[in-house]
Amino acid sequence: MQYADIINRWQQVRQRSVAIAAPLSAEDCMAQSMPDASPIKWHLAHTTWFFETFILEQFEEHFQPFHQDFRVLFNSYYNGVGDKHPRPQRGLLTRPALDTVLAYRQQVDARIRRCCDSVKDPYFFQLLELGLQHEQQHQELMLTDIKHLLSCNPLYPALYVSPANPASPADLHPLATTCAALAWQQYDASLCEIGHLGKDFCFDNESPRHRQFLEPFQLATRLISNAEYLAFIDDGGYRKPTLWLAEGWDWVRQHDLQHPLYWRPDPQGWQEFTLHGLQALKLQQPVSHLSYFEASAYAVWADARLPTEAEWEYAASQHETEGQLSQLFDSCWQWTSSSYSPYPGFVPATGAVGEYNGKFMVNQYVLRGASAFTPAGHSRNTYRNFFPATARWQLAGLRLARSQQDPEE
Amino acid sequence: MQYADIINRWQQVRQRSVAIAAPLSAEDCMAQSMPDASPIKWHLAHTTWFFETFILEQFEEHFQPFHQDFRVLFNSYYNGVGDKHPRPQRGLLTRPALDTVLAYRQQVDARIRRCCDSVKDPYFFQLLELGLQHEQQHQELMLTDIKHLLSCNPLYPALYVSPANPASPADLHPLATTCAALAWQQYDASLCEIGHLGKDFCFDNESPRHRQFLEPFQLATRLISNAEYLAFIDDGGYRKPTLWLAEGWDWVRQHDLQHPLYWRPDPQGWQEFTLHGLQALKLQQPVSHLSYFEASAYAVWADARLPTEAEWEYAASQHETEGQLSQLFDSCWQWTSSSYSPYPGFVPATGAVGEYNGKFMVNQYVLRGASAFTPAGHSRNTYRNFFPATARWQLAGLRLARSQQDPEE
Amino acid sequence: MQYADIINRWQQVRQRSVAIAAPLSAEDCMAQSMPDASPIKWHLAHTTWFFETFILEQFEEHFQPFHQDFRVLFNSYYNGVGDKHPRPQRGLLTRPALDTVLAYRQQVDARIRRCCDSVKDPYFFQLLELGLQHEQQHQELMLTDIKHLLSCNPLYPALYVSPANPASPADLHPLATTCAALAWQQYDASLCEIGHLGKDFCFDNESPRHRQFLEPFQLATRLISNAEYLAFIDDGGYRKPTLWLAEGWDWVRQHDLQHPLYWRPDPQGWQEFTLHGLQALKLQQPVSHLSYFEASAYAVWADARLPTEAEWEYAASQHETEGQLSQLFDSCWQWTSSSYSPYPGFVPATGAVGEYNGKFMVNQYVLRGASAFTPAGHSRNTYRNFFPATARWQLAGLRLARSQQDPEE
Amino acid sequence: MQYADIINRWQQVRQRSVAIAAPLSAEDCMAQSMPDASPIKWHLAHTTWFFETFILEQFEEHFQPFHQDFRVLFNSYYNGVGDKHPRPQRGLLTRPALDTVLAYRQQVDARIRRCCDSVKDPYFFQLLELGLQHEQQHQELMLTDIKHLLSCNPLYPALYVSPANPASPADLHPLATTCAALAWQQYDASLCEIGHLGKDFCFDNESPRHRQFLEPFQLATRLISNAEYLAFIDDGGYRKPTLWLAEGWDWVRQHDLQHPLYWRPDPQGWQEFTLHGLQALKLQQPVSHLSYFEASAYAVWADARLPTEAEWEYAASQHETEGQLSQLFDSCWQWTSSSYSPYPGFVPATGAVGEYNGKFMVNQYVLRGASAFTPAGHSRNTYRNFFPATARWQLAGLRLARSQQDPEE
Repeated sequence: MQYADIINRWQQVRQRSVAIAAPLSAEDCMAQSMPDASPIKWHLAHTTWFFETFILEQFEEHFQPFHQDFRVLFNSYYNGVGDKHPRPQRGLLTRPALDTVLAYRQQVDARIRRCCDSVKDPYFFQLLELGLQHEQQHQELMLTDIKHLLSCNPLYPALYVSPANPASPADLHPLATTCAALAWQQYDASLCEIGHLGKDFCFDNESPRHRQFLEPFQLATRLISNAEYLAFIDDGGYRKPTLWLAEGWDWVRQHDLQHPLYWRPDPQGWQEFTLHGLQALKLQQPVSHLSYFEASAYAVWADARLPTEAEWEYAASQHETEGQLSQLFDSCWQWTSSSYSPYPGFVPATGAVGEYNGKFMVNQYVLRGASAFTPAGHSRNTYRNFFPATARWQLAGLRLARSQQDPEE
Repeated sequence: MQYADIINRWQQVRQRSVAIAAPLSAEDCMAQSMPDASPIKWHLAHTTWFFETFILEQFEEHFQPFHQDFRVLFNSYYNGVGDKHPRPQRGLLTRPALDTVLAYRQQVDARIRRCCDSVKDPYFFQLLELGLQHEQQHQELMLTDIKHLLSCNPLYPALYVSPANPASPADLHPLATTCAALAWQQYDASLCEIGHLGKDFCFDNESPRHRQFLEPFQLATRLISNAEYLAFIDDGGYRKPTLWLAEGWDWVRQHDLQHPLYWRPDPQGWQEFTLHGLQALKLQQPVSHLSYFEASAYAVWADARLPTEAEWEYAASQHETEGQLSQLFDSCWQWTSSSYSPYPGFVPATGAVGEYNGKFMVNQYVLRGASAFTPAGHSRNTYRNFFPATARWQLAGLRLARSQQDPEE
Repeated sequence: MQYADIINRWQQVRQRSVAIAAPLSAEDCMAQSMPDASPIKWHLAHTTWFFETFILEQFEEHFQPFHQDFRVLFNSYYNGVGDKHPRPQRGLLTRPALDTVLAYRQQVDARIRRCCDSVKDPYFFQLLELGLQHEQQHQELMLTDIKHLLSCNPLYPALYVSPANPASPADLHPLATTCAALAWQQYDASLCEIGHLGKDFCFDNESPRHRQFLEPFQLATRLISNAEYLAFIDDGGYRKPTLWLAEGWDWVRQHDLQHPLYWRPDPQGWQEFTLHGLQALKLQQPVSHLSYFEASAYAVWADARLPTEAEWEYAASQHETEGQLSQLFDSCWQWTSSSYSPYPGFVPATGAVGEYNGKFMVNQYVLRGASAFTPAGHSRNTYRNFFPATARWQLAGLRLARSQQDPEE
Repeated sequence: MQYADIINRWQQVRQRSVAIAAPLSAEDCMAQSMPDASPIKWHLAHTTWFFETFILEQFEEHFQPFHQDFRVLFNSYYNGVGDKHPRPQRGLLTRPALDTVLAYRQQVDARIRRCCDSVKDPYFFQLLELGLQHEQQHQELMLTDIKHLLSCNPLYPALYVSPANPASPADLHPLATTCAALAWQQYDASLCEIGHLGKDFCFDNESPRHRQFLEPFQLATRLISNAEYLAFIDDGGYRKPTLWLAEGWDWVRQHDLQHPLYWRPDPQGWQEFTLHGLQALKLQQPVSHLSYFEASAYAVWADARLPTEAEWEYAASQHETEGQLSQLFDSCWQWTSSSYSPYPGFVPATGAVGEYNGKFMVNQYVLRGASAFTPAGHSRNTYRNFFPATARWQLAGLRLARSQQDPEE
C-alpha cells in the first residue's frame, strides 16, 4: 500500500467510529447494558488506547501518554499490559467525559500521523493495520452494543430518527430482498485447503492455511428467514426438549425464552426492535440475533444441521468463481457447528498482541460471513468470528447444511 | 404556614435539588453504581414524579401527564401506582436526557404553582409538604449516591473542585471540631414518651406518641472518632470473630472487609475519599460510612453497646433543655440497636402513599440524628431513618451507650 | 436438685435423642436437606460433642477425646473452640458411621457419670444443665429437620408408620381440638416486668428481668387455624403486594410461594405432609410452618398485627392465674413482631459458651410459646425462640394481636 | 455372541457393580458430594432402571414395574421418558433403602433372564448390550464419585483398607511403572479414517466412520508424570495468565486453584488422596484429575499442545500394529483439543435412547483412551469420552502433541 493510501485509510476508519457515535448523546455513550457489551465512549477510548499502547509506546520518540491512568482504564483484556478496569464496571466511568475521549482520539491521531512520517520499520505499519482492523471490529460492536442498550429502555428510542434522513446510515440495515424458495447446493467429497492465503492482512487465527478433508455435503443457498423461523416458533419449537442441546434446553427454560432477542409480541403481529425503533417484523428478511442454541434447535427441527466452518469456507471460495450462494456477507453472521480452536500449526503473535485471539479458543463457536453491521472491506472468506453459544446480541443468523452420501461411493 | 411561606419553601427545596446536580455533567447524572443507589437524573425525575402522580393527578383540572411513560419509569416502589421500571436498571435510562428531566421539573413546578392558587383542600397542602419532605430525603441520597459513584472511578474525581471555591457547598462537610475525651451522660430509669408531638409535619412512622419505660443507661456525649476507630482496626478488630454478630462476621469474611467504606490505605497514612476527592484521613472527625455490623463490633470491643432508639430520643429531648450532648444532628447518623418496627398503634397513611414507610419494617435498623448531608430543617428528635445492617454508603457513625444498675435499686 | 434427680434427668434426656432416631435408618440419619437443617447423626454427635468439649475437657481428669477430629467435625458455630466443619457439608460425613456416633454417645455418657461422682464444683452442674437444655433444643430440631428431609422425597415416606402403633410417639402431633370462634382478651396499659425470675435454669438471653411499659392491647385467645389461613389464600393473599412487607413480597414472588411449606394441592382437597405421611389437611388445627412474612401478611389481611414479645410474655404470665388463653405451648411457636435483641443489661455467658445466643441477635424474629415438637418440660413464659423471617420448616404459627386505646384515657 | 456368552457377560457386568459397592456402608452409598456426582445407590438403581425402562417395558409380557415411582426417581436425563428427579437432590433419597435397591436389581435381573429365554428380536439383544455398556460407564463413575465424596471428609477415609487385602480391588490403581524420558513419535501427513468399523458394539457418537486429513504431527509416547506437573507448579504455572485460556484463568483465580484436585500440601511433601486414603504423591505416575484448562496450560508451558481426537485415534490405530505408544488405556483418560461434536453424517439412535449422546455435543471436550477405573473390555481406539473444561474429578491426564512441517513439503 502506498503511503498516501495508508493515511487515507487511516483517516477513513478513524472517522467512521466518530460518525457512528455522532447521533448519540454523551449519556447514550456512557451506559453499559450488560457485562458483555461496552459503552460507546469506552469503545472510542479503547480503540485509541490500542494505538497508543501497542504502537506509540514503542515507536514514538519521547513517549508521553495522554493520561497516565488510561493505560488501566481502557485496557480490555491484555494481561501482558498490566492491570485493567473490571469489565462489568465500564459503565461507571462518567469521567473522563466524552469530550475528553474525543480529544484523546484527536491527539493520538496526530501523534500517529507524525510517526507515519518518520518511522520506517515495517512492523510499525503491520501494527497500524492491526489497529485499524481492531477498530473495525469495534465498530460492529458499537452498533450491536448501542442496539442492546436502547432495547433495554422501555421507550424503545431509535438511533436513526428516520430512514429518509440523509444524515442517517440507513444502509446499515439494507435487508430488503424478497425471499426465494430454499435451495441446496451440492458439494462432493474433496480434500480442500482452508485458511488465509497471500500477503493481505489477516488475523493470526486464520492461519496457517492447511488441508481438510470434507465428506460430501449440501449447503442452503440462502439464510433462514423470519417467516421460516416463525413457523418453528408456531410449531412449539421453544417447548420441545428433543430439538435442543441439553445445555441449551436448560438455558431456554431458565430464562423462559420464546423468541429471538429483539422480537416483541404485539396484538397486531410481531414487532422487532431495530436501530430505527420498534417496527413490524419483516418476514422475508433473514432471522437474526439468534444464539447458537436457537440456530441448532431450528436446524434439528428442519431435519438439517449447521455447517462446519471448513464446509462454509470451501463453499464460499467456490462461490467466488461460480456464484451459487447468496447472503454470504451482507445480512447476518452464520453460526457454524465448529468450536473455535486453533488451526494445526497455529502460532499466536508475539508479545501482548498475542492475547488477541488464541486465549479465547474454548467454549465458543465460530461464525462465518459478515453482517449488515460489518464495515465495508472488513469481510473475507477466511474470517473467523466467534461467540459463546448463548450470545444473542450479535447479528447472527443461520444457513442450513446437510450431510449426504458421496455419490461416488 | 402562610401561603407566601409555602411558595417560598417550595421554591427553595425544589431549587436545591437542581443546585446539587449543577456541578455534575449529564454523564455523571446518568450512572448507577449499585442497585441500592440511583442516578442523579433519576432522583431529579422521581421527586417530580411524586408531585405529578400523588398531587397533580388528583388535584389538577384536565390532568395531562408530561410524558405517559414516566409513570412507570420513575415509580420507585409504589405497587399501588402500578408497574415500575426495575431498580437495578435505572442506570440504563440514557433517555429521557437530563435536559428533558429538567424541563419536566420546570413544567411540574409551574403546574403545582397554579394549583396552589386554585386548590383549597388542606389535603393538597399536606401532600405538598410530604412531597417536599420526600424531596429532601432524596437530596441526602443524591449526595451519598454520587459519592459512591465517584468512589468507583479509579480517578477518584472530586465533585467540588476546591473547598475555597465559592460555588461549592463546602458547608456540606464541616466536621472540623477537635475531639474531646469521651464522656458519659447518665440517665435514670424513667417512664418516658417518644414519638412525634404537635402539629408540625412528621412521617407516619414517627407516630403515635407513646410511653416506653427505660432502665437506667448512659450515653456518650459525642460520636466515635476516626482516631478511635483506627485503634479498633489496629487491635485486629476486623479479624476477631468474638466481636461480631455471627451474620456480620460471615459478611466481613465474604467481602474481606478491613476498614470503613471510603478509607484507602496509603504508604503515607490512611486516605479517605470525599466529595472533595481523596484526602488525608481527618482523625478527630467522627468515623462515618459504617455498617450496623461494624458499629456493633466496635461497641463490643469498647465494652459498650449501641443505644436503643428510645434511649436516643429521650436523651435528645433532654438535651434541648440541658444541652449535654454534642454531634446529634450535624455530623453522622447514629446507628441504634433498634430494629425498625411499627410503634404501638401505628396506622400507615391511606392510599398508595401508605407504602412510604410501613412495608419496610423488617430486617432494617433505625438510625437517629442527622448528618452533614441532611438538608437544613430536615432533622428532629423523633426522626427515624433506617437501613439494612450491611449498608455502608450512608453517612452513618456511632454513639456508644452503656446499661447501668439503677442507683435507687 | 438432688444428685439422684440429676442422674435421672440426665438419662431421660439423653435417651430421648436416641429414641427419636430409633425408627430411622442409618441412611435417613445421614442426609442433609438444606444448609439450615442438619442430619440426625450430626445432631446426635454434636449434642455429645457439647458435653465432651465444654464439660469433660475442663473437669475430667486425664481427658482423652473419643476421637481427635470430632472437635472440628461436630463443632457447630463456636469460634472460641477453633475450626469447624462447613455447615452445608454436614450431609457428606458418611464416616463416622451412625454406630460409631452411638458408641460415642455411650462413652461420653459413662465419662460424664463418673464426673458426677467426683466433681463438686457447682459450675460443673450448671454446664451439665446447659448441655441438657441444649440437647432438648436439638431434639426439636431433629424432628423439624427429618420432617423437611422426608418432605423432599417424592415418595413422602412416613416416619411413624401408623398413629395406632404404640412404639410411635403419636403424641408429638396431638392437635385434635376443635376450633372455637376467635375471641380477644383485653389487657390494659401497664408497667410490667419481663424476663426470667428465680433460680431455675434459663438461657442467658432471657435475662435480666426488666421493666417494660405496655400500651393497651388485645390478644386472640387461640391460634389461627388452617381453615382461617385457607380463607386468606382463597382471597388471593399470596397475590396482593399491599398485604406484605416489601422484602417478603420479593421473596414470595421469587420462590412463587402459594401456600404453607407442607401443604400440597390435590384434586380431592388440600393435603399436608406430616411425620405420619401425606394426610388430608386438618382444617380445625392451627396453621403451622409459616414464615414470619406469611404470618405478618395474614395479620394485615385480618386487620390485626403480631404481638410483641413483651405483650406475649405479659399475657402468658397473667394466664397462669387467670387462664384466658389457649394453645400457648402445645401446638405451634408463635411469631412475634419483636426483632431478637438483647434485653437492657444483657451480659453473655463467659467463655466459648457465650457464643450460644448473643451473636445471633440481628435480623431474626422472636417466637414465643412452644410446639408439639418441644420436649416436655422445656417450655416457659420467658423462653425466646428466634428464626429469620423466611424460616418455614419450624412449627411456627400465629396468634393475632390488636392495639387499642386505653379506656382510661 | 452365543446365548451362553451373553448370559455370562450379563452376570459378570451386573455383579461387578454390586462388588464395587460391597466395601461401602449404606451411608456411604447415600451421599452426593456435588451435583455432577451421584450417590452409589443411585448408580445401582439407575443402571437397573435403564434395563427396566428401555427393555422390559417393551419386551416383557404383562410388564409390571418394580415400583411405580422409580420411573421418575431414577431417570437421569431422558426427556422422552417423562419427568425426572432433580439431579442435585439425588443425595436426599434416603428411601428407597440400599437393601431395596439391591432387591430391585435382583428382581430386574431375573426378569431380564426370563426375557432372554423367550425374546428373539435382535433389537432386544442390541438394547441389552447397550444397557451393559451403559452400566460399565457407570461403574467408572461410581469409583470417581465415591472418591470425590470421601475426599470431602476431613477424615480422608480409605475405600480399600489395605493394598494387601485380597478383598480389595487393588488392581484398580496399578500405576507403578517408572517413568521414561519423554519421547516423540512422528506421524506424516495423511488422509486417515476415524470412527468405528465393524460389527462390534459402539456408541452412536463413534460413527459413522469417515475420512479426515491430518497435517504432520508428533505425539508423546507416554503421559505427563506427577513429577513433570510439579515442575510446572514450581515454575508458577498457576500464577501466569499467559499460559491459560482466558476462561480458564478466570476460573483458576475465582477458585484459587494451585494444584490438581486431590493433591494436598504437607510439610513432608505432597500428599495425594486415593481410594486407599491419603498417600505420598507418586512422582513417576501420570498426573491425573486435571481439568481441560490445567492440561491446556501445562501444554502451553511445555511448548506443545493437546492432540486432536483424530490425531489420537489415528496414532492409536497405528500403535496396534507398531506399538510406539504407552499408557493409552491403562492409566488416565487423555484430554484432546477437540470439542465434542457430531461426526459428519452422525444420526442419533431413534427413540428416547437417542438422547444418550447427541444432546451433549456442546461446550464439552473429548477425552480419549481409558483409565485405571475403566472396566476391563470397555475401551477401544474409537471411544469418545467427554466432559466440560472444568471437570476435575475424573481420572484425566494429558499426552502432549506437537505440530510439525511435513518433511515432504
